[in-house]
Amino acid sequence: MNMQTLHVDLAQRRYPIHVGSGLLTNKELWLPYLRGKQVLVISDENVAPHYLPPIDEALQSDGRQVGQLVLPPGEQEKTMLRFSEALHALAMLRANRDACVVALGGGVVGDLAGFAAACWMRGIDFVQMPTTLLAMVDSSVGGKTAVDLPEGKNLVGAFHQPRAVIADITTLSTLPQRELSAGLAEVVKYGAIFDEGFFAWLEDHTTDLLARRDEVIIEAILRSCQHKANVVARDETEQGDRALLNFGHTFGHALETATEYGSLLHGEAVSIGMLLAARLSAQLGRSTVHDSDRLGALLRRLQLPVELPGGHTPAYLLELMRLDKKSLSGALRLILWRGIGHAEIVRDIPESNVLAVLRA
Amino acid sequence: MNMQTLHVDLAQRRYPIHVGSGLLTNKELWLPYLRGKQVLVISDENVAPHYLPPIDEALQSDGRQVGQLVLPPGEQEKTMLRFSEALHALAMLRANRDACVVALGGGVVGDLAGFAAACWMRGIDFVQMPTTLLAMVDSSVGGKTAVDLPEGKNLVGAFHQPRAVIADITTLSTLPQRELSAGLAEVVKYGAIFDEGFFAWLEDHTTDLLARRDEVIIEAILRSCQHKANVVARDETEQGDRALLNFGHTFGHALETATEYGSLLHGEAVSIGMLLAARLSAQLGRSTVHDSDRLGALLRRLQLPVELPGGHTPAYLLELMRLDKKSLSGALRLILWRGIGHAEIVRDIPESNVLAVLRA
Repeated sequence: MNMQTLHVDLAQRRYPIHVGSGLLTNKELWLPYLRGKQVLVISDENVAPHYLPPIDEALQSDGRQVGQLVLPPGEQEKTMLRFSEALHALAMLRANRDACVVALGGGVVGDLAGFAAACWMRGIDFVQMPTTLLAMVDSSVGGKTAVDLPEGKNLVGAFHQPRAVIADITTLSTLPQRELSAGLAEVVKYGAIFDEGFFAWLEDHTTDLLARRDEVIIEAILRSCQHKANVVARDETEQGDRALLNFGHTFGHALETATEYGSLLHGEAVSIGMLLAARLSAQLGRSTVHDSDRLGALLRRLQLPVELPGGHTPAYLLELMRLDKKSLSGALRLILWRGIGHAEIVRDIPESNVLAVLRA
Repeated sequence: MNMQTLHVDLAQRRYPIHVGSGLLTNKELWLPYLRGKQVLVISDENVAPHYLPPIDEALQSDGRQVGQLVLPPGEQEKTMLRFSEALHALAMLRANRDACVVALGGGVVGDLAGFAAACWMRGIDFVQMPTTLLAMVDSSVGGKTAVDLPEGKNLVGAFHQPRAVIADITTLSTLPQRELSAGLAEVVKYGAIFDEGFFAWLEDHTTDLLARRDEVIIEAILRSCQHKANVVARDETEQGDRALLNFGHTFGHALETATEYGSLLHGEAVSIGMLLAARLSAQLGRSTVHDSDRLGALLRRLQLPVELPGGHTPAYLLELMRLDKKSLSGALRLILWRGIGHAEIVRDIPESNVLAVLRA
């Protein structure tokens, strides 16, 4: 087992993020995070056949009562209905206040499992075992949990911090290349909004990243999680600069809604969205075209899409952006940048500029 | 307008509880608590015809976008389905992060509205406008929100504090006498667990309470809310002595589940439950039979039931108590007392004693 650990420091408590290989099969690492007798493991049909059996066996041999909820894969399962199923599974387990939900999967599984844990008896423990790069660097850390509504992504949810994050990169071996790239979009984001040095390091390691070289992947995850942990520690419930993490996301969520969470992966939508945000920043004179070009080049080298998919009018996309929960009382508020490494919250952006960028 | 105010002091912020008459028709009092443009008012069919029109008019004339969700009355509406409807209503309003949910009704409306506010975009404001005595002295204060599952009461919920509580006793004029008494059960609880002086004051004012004399009702609400505010300030998320508020509630919830939330009002179930807890305390030698008799006499004079309804075996009721979320990992934990004014958390209570009390 090759492992490194960092911590998220919150006002109330801290929790560890363990990053390395062979972590899930090392039950001594993660069993101590589970307090009670009942454990509900939530996973999906892609992940469960590979990684659930040894976890289930470890839990059973430790005398736990184990429930399983295995969902079809995909964002379209992050629904109120699946949330209800998770709660029903907890009821069937007769889960008490010290029961635990384990999220074994990507962001969809983690968001849904975390929201169920947040609401069962007003909050029980949960442990994140992310199995996609996207979940390891983003959704598993920081306590944002949610499900989608037909009207928009993540409209219903809670802030609920995990007890621990176990990021086992061994699980990335079965991840399709397209999903690896989608995860790298969020990795690029940390460089783009916080850290030009990290951004340059990514530019130097695109081949190793795409080839999944263990030490390079671990380094990318650790540096990403450290940035996320820092901002979450400063601003757990997004009253302030945690919002910077939404760079590219208001555009991205509109694209995901427009395509009905179908043709674009979340990271792909964020990739397009980040470049739109960078271009909007340049158009507003807040940054240079050189920086947005550099962002576009890195995303392309990581095999990520950077152009708007056809078939959606700019006016429709703008309308979807207005419903996005990051905008406040109608006035359009977006995360833009001053260039690589320097994101900022910008209010009252003229819609004509947004439309111009969506048209270009 | 005749009004008194006290505050709930939390680590993060404080919020007011206004108690008096004519408060709802005084929009200058409550409009300032609503920040954004969109307001969803949740109420029920008993309450809405009386009190919703002036509130709606005040909101409309102030330029707000107003949504309404009016439920059939009763605990059986506190469901995941109604929760989903509330979220759908917020989506229809295109509610932003500064939108507000107003709960105009009793505990069911308040719990459901508060849970919807807790989850919409991971938490927006809500204002409690309780219209039953039970809601005024208990459920509207302290931030516990929830819906029921078929498997048990309040199994799904969140801690989410209101921005303000507006307890207008004018609304009690339309409250059926049986519901007034049910509310008085929770008033008696504060005396029973915290304050023998208040308990004695209640014994001296049973006639005025049942006759709804304004100043006596206001005094009862204020003293109850002060006790609740104190304990919530000490222990917002029930890690410690907030649990004392559950005196009578584990028995009570089992009765409510056994009767399928039908024949007993919550306060009535709590009335029976408190007396069972007092009798169990006496049986365990922790308190005197004199004190449990005194409790029983006060409850009876307030026209509350004190005997178990027939048709449920003690073993079945005990089984339901085990699922109650107040018990931890199987070992039976209950709130008992040392006598009037002195509640305590007691662990590892022998089931044989519980069964004996349920049989008696």
